[in-house]
Amino acid sequence: MLRIIGLDPGLRFTGWGVVEVGNGNYACPGCGVVSVPAACCPAERLVRIFTELGAVFSRFDIDEAAVESVFVNQNGASSMKLCMARGVAMLVPALNGKEVFEYGANCVKKTVVGRGHASKEDVRRMVCALLSGLNGDTDRSDSTDALAIALCHAMHKGLPSLAQS
Amino acid sequence: MLRIIGLDPGLRFTGWGVVEVGNGNYACPGCGVVSVPAACCPAERLVRIFTELGAVFSRFDIDEAAVESVFVNQNGASSMKLCMARGVAMLVPALNGKEVFEYGANCVKKTVVGRGHASKEDVRRMVCALLSGLNGDTDRSDSTDALAIALCHAMHKGLPSLAQS
Repeated sequence: MLRIIGLDPGLRFTGWGVVEVGNGNYACPGCGVVSVPAACCPAERLVRIFTELGAVFSRFDIDEAAVESVFVNQNGASSMKLCMARGVAMLVPALNGKEVFEYGANCVKKTVVGRGHASKEDVRRMVCALLSGLNGDTDRSDSTDALAIALCHAMHKGLPSLAQS
Repeated sequence: MLRIIGLDPGLRFTGWGVVEVGNGNYACPGCGVVSVPAACCPAERLVRIFTELGAVFSRFDIDEAAVESVFVNQNGASSMKLCMARGVAMLVPALNGKEVFEYGANCVKKTVVGRGHASKEDVRRMVCALLSGLNGDTDRSDSTDALAIALCHAMHKGLPSLAQS
């Protein structure tokens, strides 16, 4: 059995989702969103992300982590903030001695949904279909996006693929 | 007496410098560079920055931190890496309960050297002039840049200014 955490970082909302792979099935022992009040300053936000993701690592027995690659978009300032959160999100598994894998957004969608330009709703639907009895906060797409990143990593490792599941 | 740490983050080299303000003088109890081998993956680099800056915080009794603001430059990929390092560098003082202040590069140069477009060498010379008996690794400009950020913060707080020193 292997437990993969997927991370979808942001300074306001950081999605996380744990995918358990074993017996030819995927399961989700937990997922959620680190939600930081808008009033917090950047440094406080980073502390919240670090502390809450650290608690997730203590709660679940994670083997590997996967995070989305980032490209500079048209809004440079928001990309910068995203990358600060991403640095802290990647730090947590690495401090726990776990390897961190990176996948581009289109790669995640293509691997999990079958189309590189699938919508967030398509991703959410497919994640819920693959992980029956999903346990956690899936109201925000951040957590299903995080689960999609974890599923993408599982599939790239040759663990039970979409076609076989 | 107040101790300010200045941080000049990067995924390869992160400069740090401590400025002590008291008795109308500036002093530098320590400065240096967290240097990470090029062969390390991003997650390993972040761990090194976190661990080594954490050790600096344990060694010096820091009151406040200052870090340079970042703007997206023409090389988006390198800005992204810089921001990941910056997120981790800002996390360290914040986890230690210290406030983190941000200053733009031009503001730092204008405050410390007197010109917003001063060269790195100008900054180094002025930092060495202001901090006599500089103790630490100043071979790389990363550490003098970090000290300049700390001095900029001291001056903006109304602590002994360039004109008075």
